[in-house]
Amino acid sequence: MTLNNLTLSNRYRLVRAATLALAEPLSAEDCAIQSMPDASPAKWHLAHVTWFFEEFVLRQALEGYRFHDEQFRYLFNSYYNAVGPMHARPQRGLLSRPTLEQVMAYRARVDEHMSELLQRRDLEARISSIIALGLNHEQQHQELLLTDIKHLFSCNPLLPAYARAPAVSSPGSLPLAFRSFAGGLVEIGHPGEGFSFDNELPRHRTYTAAFRLANRPITNGEYLEFVRAGGYENPLLWLSDGWVVVSREGWKHPIYWAPSRDAEFSLTGLRALNPHAPVCHLSYYEADAFARWAGARLPSETEWELAANEASLSGNFVENRRWHPQAAALTEPALQQMFGDVWEWTQSAYSPYPGFRAAEGALGEYNGKFMVNQLVLRGGSCATPASHIRASYRNFFNPAARWQFSGLRLAQDL
Amino acid sequence: MTLNNLTLSNRYRLVRAATLALAEPLSAEDCAIQSMPDASPAKWHLAHVTWFFEEFVLRQALEGYRFHDEQFRYLFNSYYNAVGPMHARPQRGLLSRPTLEQVMAYRARVDEHMSELLQRRDLEARISSIIALGLNHEQQHQELLLTDIKHLFSCNPLLPAYARAPAVSSPGSLPLAFRSFAGGLVEIGHPGEGFSFDNELPRHRTYTAAFRLANRPITNGEYLEFVRAGGYENPLLWLSDGWVVVSREGWKHPIYWAPSRDAEFSLTGLRALNPHAPVCHLSYYEADAFARWAGARLPSETEWELAANEASLSGNFVENRRWHPQAAALTEPALQQMFGDVWEWTQSAYSPYPGFRAAEGALGEYNGKFMVNQLVLRGGSCATPASHIRASYRNFFNPAARWQFSGLRLAQDL
Amino acid sequence: MTLNNLTLSNRYRLVRAATLALAEPLSAEDCAIQSMPDASPAKWHLAHVTWFFEEFVLRQALEGYRFHDEQFRYLFNSYYNAVGPMHARPQRGLLSRPTLEQVMAYRARVDEHMSELLQRRDLEARISSIIALGLNHEQQHQELLLTDIKHLFSCNPLLPAYARAPAVSSPGSLPLAFRSFAGGLVEIGHPGEGFSFDNELPRHRTYTAAFRLANRPITNGEYLEFVRAGGYENPLLWLSDGWVVVSREGWKHPIYWAPSRDAEFSLTGLRALNPHAPVCHLSYYEADAFARWAGARLPSETEWELAANEASLSGNFVENRRWHPQAAALTEPALQQMFGDVWEWTQSAYSPYPGFRAAEGALGEYNGKFMVNQLVLRGGSCATPASHIRASYRNFFNPAARWQFSGLRLAQDL
Amino acid sequence: MTLNNLTLSNRYRLVRAATLALAEPLSAEDCAIQSMPDASPAKWHLAHVTWFFEEFVLRQALEGYRFHDEQFRYLFNSYYNAVGPMHARPQRGLLSRPTLEQVMAYRARVDEHMSELLQRRDLEARISSIIALGLNHEQQHQELLLTDIKHLFSCNPLLPAYARAPAVSSPGSLPLAFRSFAGGLVEIGHPGEGFSFDNELPRHRTYTAAFRLANRPITNGEYLEFVRAGGYENPLLWLSDGWVVVSREGWKHPIYWAPSRDAEFSLTGLRALNPHAPVCHLSYYEADAFARWAGARLPSETEWELAANEASLSGNFVENRRWHPQAAALTEPALQQMFGDVWEWTQSAYSPYPGFRAAEGALGEYNGKFMVNQLVLRGGSCATPASHIRASYRNFFNPAARWQFSGLRLAQDL
Repeated sequence: MTLNNLTLSNRYRLVRAATLALAEPLSAEDCAIQSMPDASPAKWHLAHVTWFFEEFVLRQALEGYRFHDEQFRYLFNSYYNAVGPMHARPQRGLLSRPTLEQVMAYRARVDEHMSELLQRRDLEARISSIIALGLNHEQQHQELLLTDIKHLFSCNPLLPAYARAPAVSSPGSLPLAFRSFAGGLVEIGHPGEGFSFDNELPRHRTYTAAFRLANRPITNGEYLEFVRAGGYENPLLWLSDGWVVVSREGWKHPIYWAPSRDAEFSLTGLRALNPHAPVCHLSYYEADAFARWAGARLPSETEWELAANEASLSGNFVENRRWHPQAAALTEPALQQMFGDVWEWTQSAYSPYPGFRAAEGALGEYNGKFMVNQLVLRGGSCATPASHIRASYRNFFNPAARWQFSGLRLAQDL
Repeated sequence: MTLNNLTLSNRYRLVRAATLALAEPLSAEDCAIQSMPDASPAKWHLAHVTWFFEEFVLRQALEGYRFHDEQFRYLFNSYYNAVGPMHARPQRGLLSRPTLEQVMAYRARVDEHMSELLQRRDLEARISSIIALGLNHEQQHQELLLTDIKHLFSCNPLLPAYARAPAVSSPGSLPLAFRSFAGGLVEIGHPGEGFSFDNELPRHRTYTAAFRLANRPITNGEYLEFVRAGGYENPLLWLSDGWVVVSREGWKHPIYWAPSRDAEFSLTGLRALNPHAPVCHLSYYEADAFARWAGARLPSETEWELAANEASLSGNFVENRRWHPQAAALTEPALQQMFGDVWEWTQSAYSPYPGFRAAEGALGEYNGKFMVNQLVLRGGSCATPASHIRASYRNFFNPAARWQFSGLRLAQDL
Repeated sequence: MTLNNLTLSNRYRLVRAATLALAEPLSAEDCAIQSMPDASPAKWHLAHVTWFFEEFVLRQALEGYRFHDEQFRYLFNSYYNAVGPMHARPQRGLLSRPTLEQVMAYRARVDEHMSELLQRRDLEARISSIIALGLNHEQQHQELLLTDIKHLFSCNPLLPAYARAPAVSSPGSLPLAFRSFAGGLVEIGHPGEGFSFDNELPRHRTYTAAFRLANRPITNGEYLEFVRAGGYENPLLWLSDGWVVVSREGWKHPIYWAPSRDAEFSLTGLRALNPHAPVCHLSYYEADAFARWAGARLPSETEWELAANEASLSGNFVENRRWHPQAAALTEPALQQMFGDVWEWTQSAYSPYPGFRAAEGALGEYNGKFMVNQLVLRGGSCATPASHIRASYRNFFNPAARWQFSGLRLAQDL
Repeated sequence: MTLNNLTLSNRYRLVRAATLALAEPLSAEDCAIQSMPDASPAKWHLAHVTWFFEEFVLRQALEGYRFHDEQFRYLFNSYYNAVGPMHARPQRGLLSRPTLEQVMAYRARVDEHMSELLQRRDLEARISSIIALGLNHEQQHQELLLTDIKHLFSCNPLLPAYARAPAVSSPGSLPLAFRSFAGGLVEIGHPGEGFSFDNELPRHRTYTAAFRLANRPITNGEYLEFVRAGGYENPLLWLSDGWVVVSREGWKHPIYWAPSRDAEFSLTGLRALNPHAPVCHLSYYEADAFARWAGARLPSETEWELAANEASLSGNFVENRRWHPQAAALTEPALQQMFGDVWEWTQSAYSPYPGFRAAEGALGEYNGKFMVNQLVLRGGSCATPASHIRASYRNFFNPAARWQFSGLRLAQDL
């Protein structure tokens, strides 16, 4: 969290080093493969975040800057049409070249240029703010690198582990309880100090009725009851589109659970299902069906943000190196795990805030063009960098996506 | 509109007769074919709305009621899992039997029973309200019958006409202008008198900033400028998911336009494109892209409803038998065409209103389970029965849907 | 069979009338629907065979001939690129117009012109031979009309019957036995008298070793043993491509069998499975797997034709109006059911005969361009007109096709 | 070629070493990726051929043999259902683990065991013959390793080269001429000395009429004429199934040609199109269409084999390390390039020879189950080991396959 107090130059070094540290356990082969169109190879992540600095910072700030490799502009552009054409997303896994080694050299070369630039006394505010965006962007890809590797390894019958599992004491479950909130005519959105993405802006008025929010996310144990109660066989619990997916894909439990339901695949390999830990890797459809079954609902993002404003910005983040959601502490009376552990699906469609303006130029494509067919998630996960998250942060995925560290917290009308 | 003042019995007769009148120009062959999974054969519509009365009214109100044909319960159930299994939607077009004649006999038989029931002095309020729901349901299918036939005929190289085109004078275009609205802490949702669907409830508070709304929908002429300006070739104007569809499907103009852009297919056959009439059969993606190109945006459903509350509930509805949107009148200073002509896409995702409760039992499946992946449309169209629409009415389709009479009206922040 | 001795004019009338007789039990709705891309609506068959005479006979023989409807040239061209563009095959079922009535009028109009033409004393041999081709073409579509309607009706949960089932005595099964044939350097292909398709030519030398051929097709009872013995669960019995289809489609028995395996859907509705009748509606993959399981193989088309040359050209054809394969007679010592009842899959790929030359012009597209990815079937079926079949006749379908009346006869090396 | 005279032990060492030599230019990343379901990662090839020896030799010959890794039996089984279940083919590219290093260790370990076994004086003939099969199997995968890497590299916008291009003199084109062959009642199939696959057996009689065969394969220059003459736009030149593929896939020239038609991608990178060299990477559909356009046809496999029996078994094989087909020599009067350079499509469907018996047990799955939906190719290519090919060798691919080194030689009736 304190990262935000550092100089931009130090933050740059720390974020870039954190990416390398996450890639450290991976071989060149691990880094090259794409397991599904939604995921990207680790190598592509490593290169793309670097391209971001080259394209949006170095090219703009350094006169006469020459790209490390002109072809990388095509290969590692993700979706910025304003910048130019790009390699098709589902084919990112076909790039055995450039090699991992060449991508590492690319990173080093760009780091050198960035380092020089960051030493300038007279760095324009415009450039500084793009660098800050680039660092937050890289942090997003740090999380994706982990979720994408987890998916890849889950497709391998050998079920390889990304990391050693730390010893964890499993103390039991904190009883589920609801806290009440008054609602009213309130404000949400980023309050204006520090970094935010454009989709958190503008801070704006909105009205919400009084509501109740659960003190912690739903656990594996609670979700297992839903599974055992035939939740995946009862269409009346599901949104219509969700039931189509359940039927077509043959879903019977969360994606990484073993069919026996007593173990789950994780970044530390196959492990016993901890009934006290938050259930994870749910699609929106599953989160919504569970909430309906439980006689509750998912919170709106307004409700979630109001509650989060009262919670401490701490939790089980990627720096913990636990690589998995942990059970809630048993002692704390307040809202727990609002941050870290699992992203929490809200019932809110990902739409522009009233008065939203996308940034000028290519960076306007960063968020705005995705504001349809997705639902908002809040709070970060065990794979999120601590310095990356905040109460106003809006993550978003389509409702069938399951490979993120996504769980749920119940809400109710008062 | 006055339909709502009639006795339920008279309304039943009128609505049922209106359905038959719409099917009147169609041969048995026209009624049997399904042109795409989203559409249904006219014969299926005719039977399904009848099944609705059998399943939800006659079976509940008449002790010992025997279904006209037990197999129809399977064939003509649309999506009510609580009632039982059903014939798969994409295979509705495989049912050459029962014949149209048999379906008409089915309608007549159910009408007889309903007629008896409706003469009861002591008809339970619960039953009356399901009958009212059934009539509104049938009106929805009246509109779908027209949009589905239009799609079917558009697939036929002979481009058959459903109806004769009435003579229309084309007076020119009303200049586009914006009206201002104050917004604030307001209420939307059905106010409680008369019929509404559950998705319009509960009426609830919400906050909206001041805004401006266009005096009329966008016309063919205006949309043609967008097409000519390369709107379909510029990814920067489109939502990312929309651009995927544009590219994959090769969209170059609205679905029923001729490639020459000077004619469009309609229920009265191919006709010259009237530059003054509202553009129609847009997907959400197209409506959104146009608005972005025009430096505006789509209204939220709150904004639309606030404005509509001030407009008169009249317009070019199906009873006009014009079968197509008409140009706005030139004289009226206020908001025009808020009702009728074309459904207007809003930027609002179709979500439950705060406090929404689906109905008990099978009828709870009517609306609630579709509240994801769709956008709200408002105001009815030239294919909507006049008595069916109101300011709080929420229609919804997925953002790629083009076969409805859907257009757009611009909004702006103040 | 005697049809071939009639004047061309009389044959024309008889064949055309036979088509109408087959369509007689069908409503306009039955005739309009296409149940899968491989099948065509009955109405399309009725029109297409008529178009054939218009395009290839009337247009060539009558100077200044004007087409009944210019658009029909597009709608009812099947696959003759040399003639011009055509309506896409999978969309034949979208044509509610022209109506069945209009198609019948089209037939009548063309029949009038043909009738005049056929009265000419000086009819060119070239034209006569195209007319003969057109009649054989129409007979092929008579069979397809039946197999396509059967498929359509099988998709309807009401399981409608095309015709009343005639009473059938079920005498028991003729014991399976093999007849020996000497083979050697032989000739196959059409010997030259009477009509043949170009794919039966040229008659040519080929060598075949001595072989044995079963005295009758495999019965339902025998095939049921294969099913019960786990034939559909054992990949070792199947061609690799066949196993892919079995697994993907979940095949567990022949397409029209009830899951209970004691009944099958037929043109006369659902009927008890007759263990003595030939098994029917097998794909090549199923026929081949059965043969392997039975320690035998399918015959080559050379073997089949050599044997057929010794059999009498009689059998259970469409004129019997039984609409289904019948059990073999118990008394006959020779090869039975070589003609009629079921088409028999051979192991021969559908390839051009040595020296094959496709006809000049558009009619060269009739057969030649399909000579890949298909297997040859021989002998005709209960849906084949008696006058249409002969020993040298080559039918062909892709190996996954199941909707034809296709069964198998075993062969063995000597 | 002399390889066949070596002891089995020496042949084992040479073949295994040749595989490693081919993989030598590849990084671990290159070896891990699968570019399409038809292709396999190089690492998978390296492991699968090793598994073949473990499963079919070591397990059978060494009592108590323990598999190097039990999971490899699942991962590296290709399609032998008799051995057990297997990893799905399209997911071979998801296996970042085992690493290339681990696969190399696996090879070494199996080589040790094989080496011991091969020193036995009393090696059973049954085992020796499976080892010989395993070596021929590995040679097939050597060729596939090259064609699969070529396809992978062709998907990479960087167009990497597998090897340095050797200097080649381009002397001009040998004029196309036809040689006559008498045909008659002949024998084809493997004559019985030395190794053959079961699909080359039994040697058997067949009859073929007299024919003519071109002196060399069709060149790039000749094929370019076809392209320029609109060959890819004229449906009348194509088999119906071929035209479907051409239209759907948008084929306009051979797969690895640049759109400019003056360069082609090769294992040595992008290179100028040599008009004198054989055209390569054609599907059967393309080869067949060219032949039709040229007024000729493809040879049958009988014709090809008769001619090849008179040709010398030499040519441009993989040992040449040219990695690409070469122009024919200008001086030789006889048939040229019957072996090496490009596989030659025949018009013969891949069917069992009369009297064919698949081997007993799992190895019976080697060839027999693929005998449908494929066409035979003959003669080997520039990627085939010289010792692997012979006149009776039958290669086979489905008619749309383009990624093999496949070209064509014309034939004509006499």
